[in-house]
Amino acid sequence: MTPKIAQFLSDVQPATPCLVLDVDRVEQNYRRLQSALPLARIYYAVKANPAAPILERLTGLGSCFDAASWEEVSAVLEAGAAAESISFGNTVKKESAIRAAYARGVRMFAFDSEGELEKLARSAPGSRVYCRILVGNDGAEWPLSRKFGCEVEMARELMIKAGEMGLDPFGLSFHVGSQQTNTAAYAAAIAKVAMLFTDLKEAGVKVRMVNLGGGYPVRYRAEVPEIDAFGDAIMGAMAEHFGNAIPDIVVEPGRFIAGDAAVVSAEVVLVSRKAKDDPVRWVYLDIGRFGGLAETEGEAIKYAFRTPHDGTAEGPVTIAGPTCDSTDTLYEKSNYRLPEKLQPGDRIEILATGAYVTTYASQAFNGFAPLAEHYI
Amino acid sequence: MTPKIAQFLSDVQPATPCLVLDVDRVEQNYRRLQSALPLARIYYAVKANPAAPILERLTGLGSCFDAASWEEVSAVLEAGAAAESISFGNTVKKESAIRAAYARGVRMFAFDSEGELEKLARSAPGSRVYCRILVGNDGAEWPLSRKFGCEVEMARELMIKAGEMGLDPFGLSFHVGSQQTNTAAYAAAIAKVAMLFTDLKEAGVKVRMVNLGGGYPVRYRAEVPEIDAFGDAIMGAMAEHFGNAIPDIVVEPGRFIAGDAAVVSAEVVLVSRKAKDDPVRWVYLDIGRFGGLAETEGEAIKYAFRTPHDGTAEGPVTIAGPTCDSTDTLYEKSNYRLPEKLQPGDRIEILATGAYVTTYASQAFNGFAPLAEHYI
Repeated sequence: MTPKIAQFLSDVQPATPCLVLDVDRVEQNYRRLQSALPLARIYYAVKANPAAPILERLTGLGSCFDAASWEEVSAVLEAGAAAESISFGNTVKKESAIRAAYARGVRMFAFDSEGELEKLARSAPGSRVYCRILVGNDGAEWPLSRKFGCEVEMARELMIKAGEMGLDPFGLSFHVGSQQTNTAAYAAAIAKVAMLFTDLKEAGVKVRMVNLGGGYPVRYRAEVPEIDAFGDAIMGAMAEHFGNAIPDIVVEPGRFIAGDAAVVSAEVVLVSRKAKDDPVRWVYLDIGRFGGLAETEGEAIKYAFRTPHDGTAEGPVTIAGPTCDSTDTLYEKSNYRLPEKLQPGDRIEILATGAYVTTYASQAFNGFAPLAEHYI
Repeated sequence: MTPKIAQFLSDVQPATPCLVLDVDRVEQNYRRLQSALPLARIYYAVKANPAAPILERLTGLGSCFDAASWEEVSAVLEAGAAAESISFGNTVKKESAIRAAYARGVRMFAFDSEGELEKLARSAPGSRVYCRILVGNDGAEWPLSRKFGCEVEMARELMIKAGEMGLDPFGLSFHVGSQQTNTAAYAAAIAKVAMLFTDLKEAGVKVRMVNLGGGYPVRYRAEVPEIDAFGDAIMGAMAEHFGNAIPDIVVEPGRFIAGDAAVVSAEVVLVSRKAKDDPVRWVYLDIGRFGGLAETEGEAIKYAFRTPHDGTAEGPVTIAGPTCDSTDTLYEKSNYRLPEKLQPGDRIEILATGAYVTTYASQAFNGFAPLAEHYI
């Protein structure tokens, strides 16, 4: 929690649950990443947190943007960014969304299938396109399954076809999984991309960009490697596989930029036990999985908590949200411990909740309003 | 899909994704349940779908309501229902919510812990309270874990304490899990409750109500038992365990009332393969887990689909949502098959989506607006 957030919470005592985000921290994170990967162009993954104060600050810093939908493209343009700074990075787009983005000047689009290329050729002719390939996600706390990307052999064919269809086969992309804590994951993926670069060159397609995706981790409950370690691993692998012909490098950080810039301020609603001699207390908060903490699904992302009683005796707890839905349980198996003194009405802070929280909040599950947001 | 919904979709061709709900079907379901359980009082679980047209229709039918929050209490009152018809059924309530409900005349509250009893004694003095006990959830497709309810021995102590604290220890409740397809689950839970009734009577506490919760299933992809089978199992168990001293019976259906009253109309955004020879197509829709279909988590609820090509040759598919989140995948392991002819732009219907869909929709994940809703 930054001093500015601590001061705001103390002065304003905002109604809970709410998110408080320090926009200066967003800027610091952007600069840290820039310094760790000076050759890369940063495309902020808007989906992590599309709040206008974040987009405006990043626009001022010269950031580019990775948009997942026409609505996100529109939000970036409203923040004052140029259309040339936008990559429409979702490989699954309605053709109406492609048309709308193209009409406003967007000229970079992701794809991973022939069907998507056909839409792009029709509705965004001449645009730069990049193909997402499937790579391993080992080491990621929020792995990505096979939903996005295609196998390398298909990517090769589609890149050739893109040129034939009047599109510019500009780049290749991959994603090693979100909250990726293993620096070696990038090296393996870069090796795979480099081979495809060579294959395509032999087929007459000169690819000029590699998009390394995002996934750079944020510190939640456990320590994670420093961003410089990722920078070193990535640049080492790029030099090893591309020699002195390094292509444009694009990165798409979301979590890394916004994650540790915010806390959620919440309230303890109830502390109880299921039986008199049960050593585990249940702690119910006024925010849960459907109020924004969706990434606690499967206890994947393990947030850190601050309470007014930190430093006093602790005991084991199960932590749950406020809705009448029993899947709205945050942590049951991750050995969380909280102070014995914790009681209803206590305010607690959930740290590093700036990314992938606000927009996940349900519009009204159990009648609860979405999380309030404060950008300071 | 009811004829009224089919007509509406054909006449209006509403923008996708959207939900279309036939309020007449809600009434039919209410009457079917009433006829299967004539001795029970029906408390509609507002959280299943809190739309005003549903609450108003049910109010007109004399239904009671199970509310999960002050906001739901308020919605029920706005629909014209009397405060006496409301049970505040969440065992985890902010004290401010208890006070607000009590001030508007609500006099029935759930609890499962001493901490909650203390709040109720302070802020809803004299109210009827009922204690939720833990029972097995075997057979439920959306089981409830241990989040709500306490062990029987603790329930016994808390019911005695409730009387001492100036509350009315009115009833006991349990929940066998949502989309419960095993009629025997109720019999086992009723036996457990009946023993506690007897114990409490010996301790001088005369309990007058048993709340059987909800969980009555809706037909999704697979057949489920008829509601009459649940009625028979429940009344058989009540007679067996309570003889001719059957207490008030309360049921809290949500899914059963609203589930099959609606369809989601969606659009196919992309059909693709991960490799040329991959037999499985990926079908991406403009609605997914974060657009309302949250109960597909773990592929728990298996919705049925209707396409314009039904009856033609089908092949295996993975079905996914439109966001850049790879957990936004609906069905990968449940052997779904869809027509080979399916293509981007096709409209499809997702059946029996009237309950636990609209309110789960995220406020803006990836920039997508929440599901539009049409009540006809």
